[in-house]
Amino acid sequence: MSEPFSVRHRVQFYETDQMGIVHHSNYLRIFEEARVAWAHSKGLIDYQKPESAAHFAVLETRVCHKGPSFFGDELKTEIQAKGQGIRIIFQYRLSRGENIVALGETSHAALNTELKPVRPTPDMVEALRSESWTETWL
Amino acid sequence: MSEPFSVRHRVQFYETDQMGIVHHSNYLRIFEEARVAWAHSKGLIDYQKPESAAHFAVLETRVCHKGPSFFGDELKTEIQAKGQGIRIIFQYRLSRGENIVALGETSHAALNTELKPVRPTPDMVEALRSESWTETWL
Amino acid sequence: MSEPFSVRHRVQFYETDQMGIVHHSNYLRIFEEARVAWAHSKGLIDYQKPESAAHFAVLETRVCHKGPSFFGDELKTEIQAKGQGIRIIFQYRLSRGENIVALGETSHAALNTELKPVRPTPDMVEALRSESWTETWL
Amino acid sequence: MSEPFSVRHRVQFYETDQMGIVHHSNYLRIFEEARVAWAHSKGLIDYQKPESAAHFAVLETRVCHKGPSFFGDELKTEIQAKGQGIRIIFQYRLSRGENIVALGETSHAALNTELKPVRPTPDMVEALRSESWTETWL
Repeated sequence: MSEPFSVRHRVQFYETDQMGIVHHSNYLRIFEEARVAWAHSKGLIDYQKPESAAHFAVLETRVCHKGPSFFGDELKTEIQAKGQGIRIIFQYRLSRGENIVALGETSHAALNTELKPVRPTPDMVEALRSESWTETWL
Repeated sequence: MSEPFSVRHRVQFYETDQMGIVHHSNYLRIFEEARVAWAHSKGLIDYQKPESAAHFAVLETRVCHKGPSFFGDELKTEIQAKGQGIRIIFQYRLSRGENIVALGETSHAALNTELKPVRPTPDMVEALRSESWTETWL
Repeated sequence: MSEPFSVRHRVQFYETDQMGIVHHSNYLRIFEEARVAWAHSKGLIDYQKPESAAHFAVLETRVCHKGPSFFGDELKTEIQAKGQGIRIIFQYRLSRGENIVALGETSHAALNTELKPVRPTPDMVEALRSESWTETWL
Repeated sequence: MSEPFSVRHRVQFYETDQMGIVHHSNYLRIFEEARVAWAHSKGLIDYQKPESAAHFAVLETRVCHKGPSFFGDELKTEIQAKGQGIRIIFQYRLSRGENIVALGETSHAALNTELKPVRPTPDMVEALRSESWTETWL
């Protein structure tokens, strides 16, 4: 079985708060980095056309915090994706070394030019078809 | 029955993204504003002692997006709280005028000086006792 | 002589960093809040039309930090504005109680629909004409 | 003459605003990334000891914007540093491909345990001694 897609993120000073840890809202941003990198790797986002990323809505987000992360940490985000009707579901496993920092799930829908949710485009459906999915992450 | 505690938030330009709407990660920040204002109203946070806010962990967050919000919007966040064993649960209802923008839930635990989760302090328990809770928000 | 235009900002937990103070990048955001509120008070930005704020470029920013600010602080930002050729110059004086936290200056230009800098619009020129300016802020 | 120290930054979706460009406050964050990476490369910051980064004050920041940057851009930040009395001065040149996006300067001071500015530590002085400096960046 293949390794899940993953990205690395170096924790920046500006991502910490006065507890000395990464502020919890930043995990949604780190998940977005992973989601964008995944979509780019599938040819679904073109960095030369910034608007190619702008036609997706976030429907729901969920983050379970398992432990803190700190300035200077190199975090690894593993990501998996699947289609579910009109929705596209992503799950995330964020770790520092051997330790799980957070588990997350976000769901999304493609939007048409009037910003109404529509079915995933054929290239998105095709990209999701080749993804493996493990039910036990969350 | 009394009105839930609520705060107002004017959407700033820096909170928008290239879709022209508030970036989804900012809703966790707006929820934090409401949670802090609630805790301050109960005497649980002292703005003169910034460290009084630093001994709480975020265990879990969940946001359901119902519609977008925009630069210049005056958002209203209603908040309710309850104790659940060691956890403190907050729920949020965010609206612009008549429209629900997002519903959310976060759970937290007090931390001792070694940053280990501990039972809520007596003044927190007392504050939660006087709160009303409506099961149907989410 | 009239008081300068000013706005208040309650420092949020998410604006702090692991030094226990407001992260320096956030002062540009607090200045933007003041600038937007000033423009709204002059009728130059319409909160019902978010795009009315989107046709201004930031050309230059400068912040002199005089002291830290902390979670829970109520900051006051005084702002003044003047025209200078094609540029619009804003200066900011940020304080907590009697203490100056930061002084700042930003310069801007109006953009046309191709995002090229153009002369301030007549209503902007009119708004600036009625402003007083004190040379000694920075 | 050696190349200046530089770092790369991929522009994230959450760094854009409703003008479709990187929000200007984020350039101070990108400069911080470069400054931290520089300090780490000199052995002045230890990522295993997050507190090693927490004893520096920002005294002044200045950013000159030369052009916009966009979601997906790979930005390059070149950085140079010098001592100036008690101050440490950094300059930044941010570019996308051949185009300069921004030029910046920040000045800093080391802090003692009471958060008072003090002279740079000997290892900082030593690190600065070996740096080259080009007067013509700004």
